[in-house]
Amino acid sequence: MAREIERKWVAERPPSVESLGRGTALRQGYVAIDGNVTVRVRITEKQAWLTIKAGEDDLDRTEVEVDLDLAEAEDLWRHTGERRLEKTRHRVPVDEYTAEVDLFDGPLRGLCLVEVEFPSRDAAATFAAPDWFGREVTGQPGWSNAALARHGLPAESE
Amino acid sequence: MAREIERKWVAERPPSVESLGRGTALRQGYVAIDGNVTVRVRITEKQAWLTIKAGEDDLDRTEVEVDLDLAEAEDLWRHTGERRLEKTRHRVPVDEYTAEVDLFDGPLRGLCLVEVEFPSRDAAATFAAPDWFGREVTGQPGWSNAALARHGLPAESE
Repeated sequence: MAREIERKWVAERPPSVESLGRGTALRQGYVAIDGNVTVRVRITEKQAWLTIKAGEDDLDRTEVEVDLDLAEAEDLWRHTGERRLEKTRHRVPVDEYTAEVDLFDGPLRGLCLVEVEFPSRDAAATFAAPDWFGREVTGQPGWSNAALARHGLPAESE
Repeated sequence: MAREIERKWVAERPPSVESLGRGTALRQGYVAIDGNVTVRVRITEKQAWLTIKAGEDDLDRTEVEVDLDLAEAEDLWRHTGERRLEKTRHRVPVDEYTAEVDLFDGPLRGLCLVEVEFPSRDAAATFAAPDWFGREVTGQPGWSNAALARHGLPAESE
């Protein structure tokens, strides 16, 4: 159980792949999207998880994550239809935090999203993002992974 | 991971509660219902599970079940809205199988559903149900627990 307090950016000029290092390639798909609840399967080469997110407010919502074995995860993957994403996740230290830098592949190839999770709303509010984070899109529904998986890039980005 | 092959009945004259024994009281709620996918939280006094069912055919579909800790389960329970059921589950040996006999409480008090899971379609087809099982409703969408939680008893039962 966790309440996520995070901010998100679209990085148009992210650090080079070389400087980001190897990262973790993963694919994720949505087994169910119902109102403000999303049920996600995430699969890497060696591990898989199921994550349920629920709640109105993107800056502060409920998240439950459980391990899946790979066979279970693949079985659920069959039911994610077209609602899928591929990306490589890099973890980059920024101040006392860790930025998750996601380089997308597949239909969203070229997209780079940056997320930072904070221990409190105060910490989130006072964090000064480095320039390379780019444009902040915290709380904008079109930039959620679930929305990107369903609809691709939001229209505003054209 | 499992493929469920099961049959279901509505027992209008189930065995007495005394003969069924104590059973396990549980409540279950649906965090997400999306097409043919249901995501269910089930909570007993001591344990909790998350169960994802997916697939078109009630007689043979995919099910993934994972343990939750009670705090996680209660956190998800908040997001089940009105889509909830209460029942006491009794496990009754019938031939070489185990019948799950569910006595409902709350708004569905008085309802008794019986389910038997089989190792194969052949076993399911050749099983001879005892009289007290009542009317078979296998594969009827209105009698799924998810439908009962959302809509109450199906209209045909009036």
